[in-house]
Amino acid sequence: MSTLNPKRTIAELKELRALTGDENGAQRVAFTKTWIAARELLRQKVAGLPLEIHNDAAGNTWFTLPGESEKCLLIGGHIDSVPNGGWLDGCLNVFAGVEILRRMSAQYHGKPPVTVRLVDWADEEGARFGKSLFGSSACSGNLDMNEARGLADKQGIKLPDALREVGIDFERVKESGKELQHAAAYLELHIEQGPVLLDLDLPLGAVLGTFGVERHAITFHGQAAHSGSTPMNRRKDAFLAAAKMSPEIYQIAARSGNGVCTIGACSTKPGIVTSVVEECRITLDQRHLDSAKLATMLAEAKSASEQFAREGNVKVFWERLWQIAPRPFNDELIALCDDAIRETSGQSHRLPSGPLHDAAEVASAGVPTVMMFVQSLHGISHNKIEDTKEEHLELCVTAFDKLAEKAMKWIQQKD
Amino acid sequence: MSTLNPKRTIAELKELRALTGDENGAQRVAFTKTWIAARELLRQKVAGLPLEIHNDAAGNTWFTLPGESEKCLLIGGHIDSVPNGGWLDGCLNVFAGVEILRRMSAQYHGKPPVTVRLVDWADEEGARFGKSLFGSSACSGNLDMNEARGLADKQGIKLPDALREVGIDFERVKESGKELQHAAAYLELHIEQGPVLLDLDLPLGAVLGTFGVERHAITFHGQAAHSGSTPMNRRKDAFLAAAKMSPEIYQIAARSGNGVCTIGACSTKPGIVTSVVEECRITLDQRHLDSAKLATMLAEAKSASEQFAREGNVKVFWERLWQIAPRPFNDELIALCDDAIRETSGQSHRLPSGPLHDAAEVASAGVPTVMMFVQSLHGISHNKIEDTKEEHLELCVTAFDKLAEKAMKWIQQKD
Repeated sequence: MSTLNPKRTIAELKELRALTGDENGAQRVAFTKTWIAARELLRQKVAGLPLEIHNDAAGNTWFTLPGESEKCLLIGGHIDSVPNGGWLDGCLNVFAGVEILRRMSAQYHGKPPVTVRLVDWADEEGARFGKSLFGSSACSGNLDMNEARGLADKQGIKLPDALREVGIDFERVKESGKELQHAAAYLELHIEQGPVLLDLDLPLGAVLGTFGVERHAITFHGQAAHSGSTPMNRRKDAFLAAAKMSPEIYQIAARSGNGVCTIGACSTKPGIVTSVVEECRITLDQRHLDSAKLATMLAEAKSASEQFAREGNVKVFWERLWQIAPRPFNDELIALCDDAIRETSGQSHRLPSGPLHDAAEVASAGVPTVMMFVQSLHGISHNKIEDTKEEHLELCVTAFDKLAEKAMKWIQQKD
Repeated sequence: MSTLNPKRTIAELKELRALTGDENGAQRVAFTKTWIAARELLRQKVAGLPLEIHNDAAGNTWFTLPGESEKCLLIGGHIDSVPNGGWLDGCLNVFAGVEILRRMSAQYHGKPPVTVRLVDWADEEGARFGKSLFGSSACSGNLDMNEARGLADKQGIKLPDALREVGIDFERVKESGKELQHAAAYLELHIEQGPVLLDLDLPLGAVLGTFGVERHAITFHGQAAHSGSTPMNRRKDAFLAAAKMSPEIYQIAARSGNGVCTIGACSTKPGIVTSVVEECRITLDQRHLDSAKLATMLAEAKSASEQFAREGNVKVFWERLWQIAPRPFNDELIALCDDAIRETSGQSHRLPSGPLHDAAEVASAGVPTVMMFVQSLHGISHNKIEDTKEEHLELCVTAFDKLAEKAMKWIQQKD
């Protein structure tokens, strides 16, 4: 009965790549002509299916297959890319969703038990205005309107003006929230963008949620002193204290279970070969799926920095750069995702998501949510070398379709 | 019989400061009008003494008090300063030398047992052309003519052209080497420019020599990776390997006895908060008085860097930036310096010199050499806040004069 054809999904992704990519990778930056061309291709691909299609107040496109119940199963993705992006990030989800709409439309003769909706979120990447999850955060209500109103691209064009160009009234974008009115579950498929499944030699994984993030700049302040005339025991070496943080964050991450900590940048003043470092600034990015453990990781890092500062007779200052709470996904949907994966490829693995996704916004709006990851080669995305084996792409479309079917039955049972 | 008057030295230093300094400090940069004015003041101060005075081929000024023997006791200093420099660095030595010439001239009725010569070295600081010890390295023969010929100041003026302005023929500067023909000992007094004597609460110290220096850039190369999606055990973190070097160099310095090691600069690429560090470059400056121990310190640092690179699955590359051999001073003169200090202020201390001095050049030319250090307040020089207690300045002139007398007798005994 099913007409699911994962090979067609791969063919459509290649067609999209030919239409909207170049020798440097995907060029579907949101609100550009290339992005609009990608969306037109998407509409062509669903022509003939019994769908209601419209753009909401935030520019998200909704493809609705009305069902027996007004309760909705949502399937999400984003067709926009970063400049010079990969061929799968975001659009895999959308075209897998198209294939599921085709299969359901055929199997249920145009009327599945619950309403099924595919959403193509607008500007997930935030490549032009530096703020990701635009469409989904407008829909969830989390978008900070004052902050977003002031965002400008490199040419100085403000976000509200760019939105007006594509027919969106910035001041009304949160009206898109009404789209979630009957949402009973949200599913999102995505490439992993990390090496975990590759390391485990598994094609598919069930995602536990998106990490919470604590992001800080830490500045150690000592005293500049001549590298030749200053005995070692007299030094107030800001670099020594900062350097001790690096092995320490590996210990902190290990104690946390599956959190991650990264020192991404280090700079020194005066930063010359003949002087002890007076000031050393490092950035620390900490992520965990559990908010209490994230708070513990932060507290341990602060405590360690203060200890190293005391030991080295230097001072330490912390400045918060950004934070976001963890978004754990729905336990029952995670279990269904595991089941769908096991039925498809034999073995599942549960893992957190380091990067944020639109699913985090939908989950924060109270919609039961889960994501499925498919293995990434090289563990790399946001780059033209981003890739996934075609056999894994086929498996993920099949498994994601099984998950959609299971989720639909789960919604029915909850009625 | 002695007419030594250390208070006069302090008064003359203050007169020099008033003439050649401003609210930002000393401005006696070599080859400038202010430097020439300082040298004119110096000539005024020795007027009336039975001295032969001339500039050599490198612009060094020699004040010669002929003695019974043609064998020479040399006393050195430099009246040039860095821009915004201190009131003592270099010129203390010169004016203490003037006071010794006065005392000897009076005591020996114009004819001491050996010839005594005060030299005011030209451009010790190298402030304008970025190359220190110009006059003394020309005299020692160590000056790299090809390198020096290409040196230019910030305005693009070449060193040879600047020298011509003050009457010096660059191509002939090494002819100054003949000034060392009868040199039997070289003495130099200097402010410590470090905190060792201050820490020990001692006014004076005998200098063992100038440190040899090994200066390198060390680059660790790992792999950039997303801070959210890359598990800790999968990272190739260039910063982690570099950071481990910092505590390690303190261990290496401690094992070396009295060597010093400094990581003065650290930079990271891509250097963003959301990525593991792909490339981390640090500078390492290592100094020791003993060339074998300096070589060991370097070997240990290389070995440690390779170990940390292996542990972190990254690569490491070393690039030599600069090196200079240690210049140990003369053991017998060091002992005489100790004696002179003990007779003057009760307790001596032997210490190496981190910074280079003209004395290192004279020592490398085979002239038995020693330096005496007087305590620096704050351990700071090359700054207008550079200072030394006046009671310590008086003590150092007295002790340095005693050393000159002892050195003269030592030269006589060797006849």
